Amino acid sequence: MPERTKDTLDAARYTAPLPLKDVRIRDPFWAQYQRKVLDQVIPYQWEALNDRVPGADKSGCIANFEIAAGRREGTHYGWVFQDSDLAKWLEAVAYALTLRPDPALERTADEAIDLVCAAQQPDGYLNTYYIINGLDKRFTNLRDNHELYCFGHMTEAAVAYYEATGKDALLQAMIRYAACIDRLIGPEEGKMHGYPGHEVAEMALIRLYAVTHDPMHLKLAKYFIDQRGQSPLYFDEEGRKNGNHFYWEHSHYRYQYYQAGLPVRRQREADGHAVRAAYLMSGIADVARTTGDDGLYETAQALWDNMTHRRMYVTGAIGSSHVGEAFTFDYDLPNDTVYGETCAAIGLVFFARRMLEIRPRAEYADVLERALYNGVISGIALDGTRFFYVNPLEVLPQACEKDEDKCHVKPVRQPWFGCACCPPNIARLLASIGQYAATVREDAVYIHLYAGADLNVRLNGEPLALKIESKLPWQGSVRLRVASGGANGRIALRVPGWCPRYTLEINGRPAEAALEEGYLLLDRCWQAGDEVSLDLEMPVTRIAANPRVREDIGKVAVTRGPLVYCLEEADNGPGLHLVRRPRAAAFRVEHRDDLLDGVDLLKVRGQRLQDTWSEDVLYAPAEALPEAPADLTFIPYYAWANRGAGEMCVWVRES
Amino acid sequence: MPERTKDTLDAARYTAPLPLKDVRIRDPFWAQYQRKVLDQVIPYQWEALNDRVPGADKSGCIANFEIAAGRREGTHYGWVFQDSDLAKWLEAVAYALTLRPDPALERTADEAIDLVCAAQQPDGYLNTYYIINGLDKRFTNLRDNHELYCFGHMTEAAVAYYEATGKDALLQAMIRYAACIDRLIGPEEGKMHGYPGHEVAEMALIRLYAVTHDPMHLKLAKYFIDQRGQSPLYFDEEGRKNGNHFYWEHSHYRYQYYQAGLPVRRQREADGHAVRAAYLMSGIADVARTTGDDGLYETAQALWDNMTHRRMYVTGAIGSSHVGEAFTFDYDLPNDTVYGETCAAIGLVFFARRMLEIRPRAEYADVLERALYNGVISGIALDGTRFFYVNPLEVLPQACEKDEDKCHVKPVRQPWFGCACCPPNIARLLASIGQYAATVREDAVYIHLYAGADLNVRLNGEPLALKIESKLPWQGSVRLRVASGGANGRIALRVPGWCPRYTLEINGRPAEAALEEGYLLLDRCWQAGDEVSLDLEMPVTRIAANPRVREDIGKVAVTRGPLVYCLEEADNGPGLHLVRRPRAAAFRVEHRDDLLDGVDLLKVRGQRLQDTWSEDVLYAPAEALPEAPADLTFIPYYAWANRGAGEMCVWVRES
Repeated sequence: MPERTKDTLDAARYTAPLPLKDVRIRDPFWAQYQRKVLDQVIPYQWEALNDRVPGADKSGCIANFEIAAGRREGTHYGWVFQDSDLAKWLEAVAYALTLRPDPALERTADEAIDLVCAAQQPDGYLNTYYIINGLDKRFTNLRDNHELYCFGHMTEAAVAYYEATGKDALLQAMIRYAACIDRLIGPEEGKMHGYPGHEVAEMALIRLYAVTHDPMHLKLAKYFIDQRGQSPLYFDEEGRKNGNHFYWEHSHYRYQYYQAGLPVRRQREADGHAVRAAYLMSGIADVARTTGDDGLYETAQALWDNMTHRRMYVTGAIGSSHVGEAFTFDYDLPNDTVYGETCAAIGLVFFARRMLEIRPRAEYADVLERALYNGVISGIALDGTRFFYVNPLEVLPQACEKDEDKCHVKPVRQPWFGCACCPPNIARLLASIGQYAATVREDAVYIHLYAGADLNVRLNGEPLALKIESKLPWQGSVRLRVASGGANGRIALRVPGWCPRYTLEINGRPAEAALEEGYLLLDRCWQAGDEVSLDLEMPVTRIAANPRVREDIGKVAVTRGPLVYCLEEADNGPGLHLVRRPRAAAFRVEHRDDLLDGVDLLKVRGQRLQDTWSEDVLYAPAEALPEAPADLTFIPYYAWANRGAGEMCVWVRES
Repeated sequence: MPERTKDTLDAARYTAPLPLKDVRIRDPFWAQYQRKVLDQVIPYQWEALNDRVPGADKSGCIANFEIAAGRREGTHYGWVFQDSDLAKWLEAVAYALTLRPDPALERTADEAIDLVCAAQQPDGYLNTYYIINGLDKRFTNLRDNHELYCFGHMTEAAVAYYEATGKDALLQAMIRYAACIDRLIGPEEGKMHGYPGHEVAEMALIRLYAVTHDPMHLKLAKYFIDQRGQSPLYFDEEGRKNGNHFYWEHSHYRYQYYQAGLPVRRQREADGHAVRAAYLMSGIADVARTTGDDGLYETAQALWDNMTHRRMYVTGAIGSSHVGEAFTFDYDLPNDTVYGETCAAIGLVFFARRMLEIRPRAEYADVLERALYNGVISGIALDGTRFFYVNPLEVLPQACEKDEDKCHVKPVRQPWFGCACCPPNIARLLASIGQYAATVREDAVYIHLYAGADLNVRLNGEPLALKIESKLPWQGSVRLRVASGGANGRIALRVPGWCPRYTLEINGRPAEAALEEGYLLLDRCWQAGDEVSLDLEMPVTRIAANPRVREDIGKVAVTRGPLVYCLEEADNGPGLHLVRRPRAAAFRVEHRDDLLDGVDLLKVRGQRLQDTWSEDVLYAPAEALPEAPADLTFIPYYAWANRGAGEMCVWVRES
């Protein structure tokens, strides 16, 4: 647990996630995702990292480490950040080993860590691209060349692996690498006054600091935040000095592509590359919490507000444009040219959890849940072996092939990517989902997600075993039982933003509780056998977008509970732009065990414009097209594109 | 006039444009455009070609010729096709001199031609890029390096200048260049079996042939058509042999970007770069007509059908994507990411005129008129000194700046372009507009556009002076008078596709006439003083797009006569996506002399959704937004963006 500065008013209210070993997910919905990660994703990705998946893009990742370690000859393959794929895989393995011991997997991971350590240089430096291509060029392009990004991911893996197994080989390696970085980068005269071009090291250093309590690790994280965007701009000076090509020179993004166009504390808009932005925001929140810095929290909140109130899709996807994989401007949320990278939605989950740690507010949890149940898990196929990089809200397969503005959108998930950031990222998040369900502090347990789970907590020092049962996302009933132990303190239960009405019972009797920032505060002396029932109404809800969102005018998105729904060609035929939901038409929920690994469908009697035109007439005096009734079937968005290529849309016309 | 092969059934029905000197435009609408070209565009562009326009992108065009001619030192500047800008300017000057003698301008043009000729190599070769950079590399990349494109444009200029002035210096130079090309390219053993990567030479050679009657010129044009796309593919072999980088290698376009993925006669879809495609189609029609090749005409018709029935915007814009400036697929007509290059609409006008020459059908003339009055003249500002490259149907200025998928769209016209194909292209078309108004054959005059004009024609050998008066595009009344002469034969008057009803009078008495393929056939003995009145009803018409056009569902485009209208922020405020035209609301026409150089506005009582949302709420349960009445003012599309940057849209919601 991170050491906290106690000198601000709110610091005592900060919460933290439970150690993963103290959260056992038993929930049918999430457990199946965790099984996919353990049974499919992790073994599959190991094969991919070793270039043994036929038909998949080459990774070269393990080979790069072998070359860097002197164990084989060859040249570096792939991106300058190829190392991070192994880091994210190792992090996912760490969580997997916590969920389910697996000696063979642990042996494989140990060997991989041994390989990583063998590649480390005497001074602690560790990046295969420069070890192979020439160490003289290292740290000459912090802006674009991702060394600090790879450092960050490998540090996260190191901490996770240490926490899961107690083995510290990788942790020690990364402590040495952090010291190497600290010798070279920092505010002191003669050091580089730089920071990562692609953020993640900020979060990683805070995690490292929580284990090491080494003030240098906190100092470096804080420096990366405080120095970012300061004038004279390091990226500018570095670029001139080293002759680095500046790809965004003539773009409106310029240094805001890297969130470095302004000092961090003066930034008020979610700008540039969406994954970087979300990772920076997560790091800002981490540093704010760890140092008790209210001003920095205000910056995080301003960025949160801009991003989630003006620049986020209803699925929790972020990044409106494939150019720069980036944010564009307020309310610009095109559904068919969207980027919506899986990693960016994951970054949003990271940020939301960190904001919840600072202050349990339902708004943060609502966004966390929105992203998780929609824009994140849409990134992985139901069979666990194929992935989306881009998560569109409207797809016409022909356009993915023939309109090069939409060629980044794929109508079916892909086996692997040359730039394979998303698959291992989704694996590490799903394997550690327990850390997003609840956060705790001395006197309180906050339940954010009603994933069925067994939690071992301490409340005012006393141990308490909690058992949560839930039928989400299909039904809104939640039971929380005290399985053992007893303690005096608070259990706070989130009332999701999608829930219009709820009933609360404690030990079979209707109960009332104060509602603070979206959480029901149950303060009492808890005893074994206590049972809380929270029944959340979960109606089908038609969601409108702010009228400034041009693309969604006259349309609604259909949601139920945490799930956003969509129409797919597989159920509704082609020409989804021709269908409409009459405003008065009622939805029917239909559970289907045999479809898409088990889903609730939403059915409604809609209308479909009849295409009565000759295909050889393009324009003609307008006459209202005839409509005919059409049964519309909505499926959960996360499950789309599991039945071959076809049209899909989230926003549906309504009148 | 081209020599025609008479051995096909239809050849006797072919028509041809009148020599420009025999068509005097007196029409207030088009005459003002011609004045812009003469008074503004031609002098302005001469300054631009000479790099004397402050703030405009550098051209380098004249300087390149001076360097190539050995008159100054320096390196080639700009694109490999920079020469073509001068060619198009010279062609425009030729037409201008026909319209209005101007000794100073003619002297300038003569000097420019002298410069061009001075740059010509002893063997006839003439391209400044390779003359400056090394002749050893000439013709090593027909696919991408535009030598044959520059040849084509300069040849068109040469013919036009010869026809306008009788001076043949440039004509002789281009005849020499054509001979040089013929020595190097053709079906014979040892020659390159190539053809232009960017078409235009096909049209140019047919024009040259019409003047020279040299069979080699026809043979070369025909070879360029017949050889294109044949296997083994020349571009492929050339690329391998010379190591040319193939930009479209991994794109779905591949060789269809150049319309070379299939032999021309097997092509059935308008594919790839839209300007190239339209120029190829024009060349196909030219060769089909000149050789009486019905099969080739069928190819032209198939391409016409695909393009105009499935891939053309309501403004006559073509090219749905800025990637490749290209067509995408059937019914894919996005309004905000559209390319719609001015040159492509001009190419469509070229093609339509050539199809009319083969067969006077109102469908061809309808498209010609649609493109001309909308997608072509939208490319030039009312003051004649600024230009659009891209002609969108929906614009949000912020998106042009911050959504890089739309950065090719400019909210205001630009002074010049580094790639300056459009400004001189529009100049040469507007200056020669008389050649699009009517075509003639031995026994008939076909009137396609009712531009007010004086025509000197021969009908069955007898001279006839015709005077056309028209108030188009503002009113549909047309008068045609025989000013002098007398002849027996046909005057055919087009009934535009936008006209639901018309009345015809001859010499003050109601008349009837056969209607054939959209033309009223007036066969009689014409005498001086005869007067035909054709009153075309010109109601405001709401146009719908084929329901397969996803972007236009629930929307209409408003038209009146040949003009497409649009909404602009200047008249209607921002948030144009919030307005709607109630289906029953009637339009009012309001003429305004003081606005936009004189226009008819269309006014209607519309509705506007009231944005009652907090700007900090992005999604909420859907409730119908309140509406309030809003007076909507539509302006002609061609006149948009003459009052600063603002929103614009052609397609407007209706219900």
